[in-house]
Amino acid sequence: MSSSDIFIGEIIGTAVLILLGAGVVAAVVLKRSKAQGAGWVAIAFGWGFAVMTAVYIAGPLSGAHLNPAVTLGIAITSGDWSNVPVQMAGELIGAMVGAFLAWLTYYGQFKAHLADPEVVPPPLDEGLVDERSAPNAGPVLGIFSTGPEIRNVWQNLTTEIIGTLVLVLAVLTMGLNDSGKGLGVLGGLIVALVVVSIGFSLGGPTGYAINPARDLGPRIVHALLPMRNKGGSDWGYAWVPVVGPLIGAAIAAGIYNIAFA
Amino acid sequence: MSSSDIFIGEIIGTAVLILLGAGVVAAVVLKRSKAQGAGWVAIAFGWGFAVMTAVYIAGPLSGAHLNPAVTLGIAITSGDWSNVPVQMAGELIGAMVGAFLAWLTYYGQFKAHLADPEVVPPPLDEGLVDERSAPNAGPVLGIFSTGPEIRNVWQNLTTEIIGTLVLVLAVLTMGLNDSGKGLGVLGGLIVALVVVSIGFSLGGPTGYAINPARDLGPRIVHALLPMRNKGGSDWGYAWVPVVGPLIGAAIAAGIYNIAFA
Amino acid sequence: MSSSDIFIGEIIGTAVLILLGAGVVAAVVLKRSKAQGAGWVAIAFGWGFAVMTAVYIAGPLSGAHLNPAVTLGIAITSGDWSNVPVQMAGELIGAMVGAFLAWLTYYGQFKAHLADPEVVPPPLDEGLVDERSAPNAGPVLGIFSTGPEIRNVWQNLTTEIIGTLVLVLAVLTMGLNDSGKGLGVLGGLIVALVVVSIGFSLGGPTGYAINPARDLGPRIVHALLPMRNKGGSDWGYAWVPVVGPLIGAAIAAGIYNIAFA
Amino acid sequence: MSSSDIFIGEIIGTAVLILLGAGVVAAVVLKRSKAQGAGWVAIAFGWGFAVMTAVYIAGPLSGAHLNPAVTLGIAITSGDWSNVPVQMAGELIGAMVGAFLAWLTYYGQFKAHLADPEVVPPPLDEGLVDERSAPNAGPVLGIFSTGPEIRNVWQNLTTEIIGTLVLVLAVLTMGLNDSGKGLGVLGGLIVALVVVSIGFSLGGPTGYAINPARDLGPRIVHALLPMRNKGGSDWGYAWVPVVGPLIGAAIAAGIYNIAFA
Repeated sequence: MSSSDIFIGEIIGTAVLILLGAGVVAAVVLKRSKAQGAGWVAIAFGWGFAVMTAVYIAGPLSGAHLNPAVTLGIAITSGDWSNVPVQMAGELIGAMVGAFLAWLTYYGQFKAHLADPEVVPPPLDEGLVDERSAPNAGPVLGIFSTGPEIRNVWQNLTTEIIGTLVLVLAVLTMGLNDSGKGLGVLGGLIVALVVVSIGFSLGGPTGYAINPARDLGPRIVHALLPMRNKGGSDWGYAWVPVVGPLIGAAIAAGIYNIAFA
Repeated sequence: MSSSDIFIGEIIGTAVLILLGAGVVAAVVLKRSKAQGAGWVAIAFGWGFAVMTAVYIAGPLSGAHLNPAVTLGIAITSGDWSNVPVQMAGELIGAMVGAFLAWLTYYGQFKAHLADPEVVPPPLDEGLVDERSAPNAGPVLGIFSTGPEIRNVWQNLTTEIIGTLVLVLAVLTMGLNDSGKGLGVLGGLIVALVVVSIGFSLGGPTGYAINPARDLGPRIVHALLPMRNKGGSDWGYAWVPVVGPLIGAAIAAGIYNIAFA
Repeated sequence: MSSSDIFIGEIIGTAVLILLGAGVVAAVVLKRSKAQGAGWVAIAFGWGFAVMTAVYIAGPLSGAHLNPAVTLGIAITSGDWSNVPVQMAGELIGAMVGAFLAWLTYYGQFKAHLADPEVVPPPLDEGLVDERSAPNAGPVLGIFSTGPEIRNVWQNLTTEIIGTLVLVLAVLTMGLNDSGKGLGVLGGLIVALVVVSIGFSLGGPTGYAINPARDLGPRIVHALLPMRNKGGSDWGYAWVPVVGPLIGAAIAAGIYNIAFA
Repeated sequence: MSSSDIFIGEIIGTAVLILLGAGVVAAVVLKRSKAQGAGWVAIAFGWGFAVMTAVYIAGPLSGAHLNPAVTLGIAITSGDWSNVPVQMAGELIGAMVGAFLAWLTYYGQFKAHLADPEVVPPPLDEGLVDERSAPNAGPVLGIFSTGPEIRNVWQNLTTEIIGTLVLVLAVLTMGLNDSGKGLGVLGGLIVALVVVSIGFSLGGPTGYAINPARDLGPRIVHALLPMRNKGGSDWGYAWVPVVGPLIGAAIAAGIYNIAFA
């Protein structure tokens, strides 16, 4: 794989991932969407199959990390850091492209949702504090980026570390299955269902970023997009879903090196 | 594969696809169905597994495109247009057969549903405009064809383009997985789950036609079937789910030729 | 495979199928079950994975038809009828064993459910006619056997024919995939998801028996089990889910012989 | 596989299993969780994919039994008991680690939930007896361990025996598929979906422990954790989800030895 293939593959793959991932949240949350109210089952499966689709599309081109935490875990265990900057840059750019495409797909729904007086309360409404625990989190920010139900950074960081640890450990050990031959073409499906599992099981407190690019890229796009009443982008929380997953990936790599290598 | 195998295979496969796809919407929407109210989770999985079933049945006979957008994308990237007319004709005919079979399966439910005064309001009722944004869309048209929640053709076209782009890009890149050997027998399952993903994530605004035959064939059948109170077939919108998917497929083929070939 | 292996394999496999299949309906329907109200999504997936579990358990022993309609379709297309009596006998016995085990698993729930005055109305209550369209269908019969939402035998027969046609056509064509080598170990999963698909899409009108043993065996057990207030076993309908699937299988075999062989 | 690999693998695998399994129940049950109210569909899939994730992670290291009932069934049929103590010890320790990690992940949610006066009624409230049938079962015990909806130990034991019988029979027969070559890398997915199936179909009465370590380990952690208002750990029931699964596994091994070996 050449550097340019890796760069383009990570952009395309992460764009597909975030288009489908942000898309399912938009589908479930926004008014005038046919899927409104489909709930957490839709979100957990939607994000998982988003990973699957992106992995099979980008896999042949770039290996489809699609996640700086995965890139970090593989770099630590393999010792090969040469492609890390290109991979992480592609992942962040792809995440921004995907968030923009999701917004484009649901443009009419965003507009209708944010024009609804029930959705957007007057400024400083205290009800919002209870609902999202974030005084500056906007009514559609959750489509782009994650946010905690109960705001406590050390607690939230712990949750993101544990979730990413499971993901990266699963990715790293996949190559060992079937006596070292790996999962082959089944791998993309299994990693997708691992993400479904993390969503169902560990997503409750923070919305499971488990991927710095998945959270930061769309948050930047949220800040830039021209939407009336969109609310703040909650930058005070933004470091948690970046740092937590990277710590989780490093711990997973450590466990791998000690127990599996 | 001979031309006649391709023609028959596409008819059988697309008939199974639409029987099961229109079937799940009927199951969820119609009164006196045991699945009434099962919601978007049922619809997204139902359509995806409809694709899976159809692909495994028709695959050995015709390759199972089942979708003129897929046929177009493969023709552009392969340069082989010789079977395109036979494939597209088979897909449209199959879609009509499938819609008829779905109607037959739910005949009693259609009748009960359309005899219910709560379902069928008096003509020109304004409530209907809000519900479907289509003054002439009938109360059961959504079982046959797609329609937008918010009617704005450019917006709706964009949504269909993006959804089909993801589908066709996934189909085209599948052959590249596992170093060019493709996904093998797993392919039918993966493409099904890609369709589940698109349903969950990109289906909210327009109901994700992402397939011209899937929308046009059943719309023709809706127009022809003898159902009292069925309402109009919304022909004003009919070009969007035909043109949008074809544009999306062409863009996917372009991306494939530039980045993956 | 010896005759006795086939006989024992079909008994074990069909017992597992019906234990898990009747089980999921009991889980969703009965009072004092943790899964009560989980709805059609649970039922469709539950029956599908019941098929999967049974196929992988019984497959090595008997080939795991588990369904007289599948046995008929394979006999017609292969021309080999020698094992048909043993297979069908095993399937019916297994279905009865499975229904009994499901009843044992939910014994306490059956008892609590049937002791509830809201569940069991006084005899000849007209409300029951509307609810099940069957004046003699008991409040727990639906856990054992299928019944129509709208009682019209020709309509109900058509629905069962169409559903079984899809199932048997999928089973028959599976062997043709990947250039005649078949789906291999993936087959059990794919056939399970075909059953999920039929459940979501074609199950609304009659509850998709699509298997004569699945319906008749548990109906006999329902008639025999000592349950107070269990209601009638609806024998007037019992021929539909036996005859319909056999007709559907014969049509599927005909399509296979004409188009695929 | 060395003894220490088996020991460490079973600890890591069972920890992942219980982290994700207890996690999904916490996600669905606890207040201030984004997944609250997602219901039984989330729980059945969540536990199944928890098994899948744990099997693929621990498989290369220890074979991933993750369950003393599976260990017992394999020991009986293989005749090799040498690793049984190490395996069972690892499973129990891993289950405790996983329960602790799940508690850590949902720490804020546990605290908020147990501070809610609606959740924790005053002592000796009779409403609790009806809700869980366990006068001493705490309001969050169900996240850690199973408990019956209707308390009748012989009935509950029967349910656990039947559920585990299906699981262990499926595990034992997997190696026979595809003419003795087994399911290969697909095995982890299939066993996961068998667990989903058991959850949907047989989980209604007791919450399907089907694994002594899965129930006992987290129950010990529940007893030890410093949570205000957590309630009792229901030790009177604790033997049922230990003894039932072991009996079920022994019966499955017997059936295997008679019919399949």
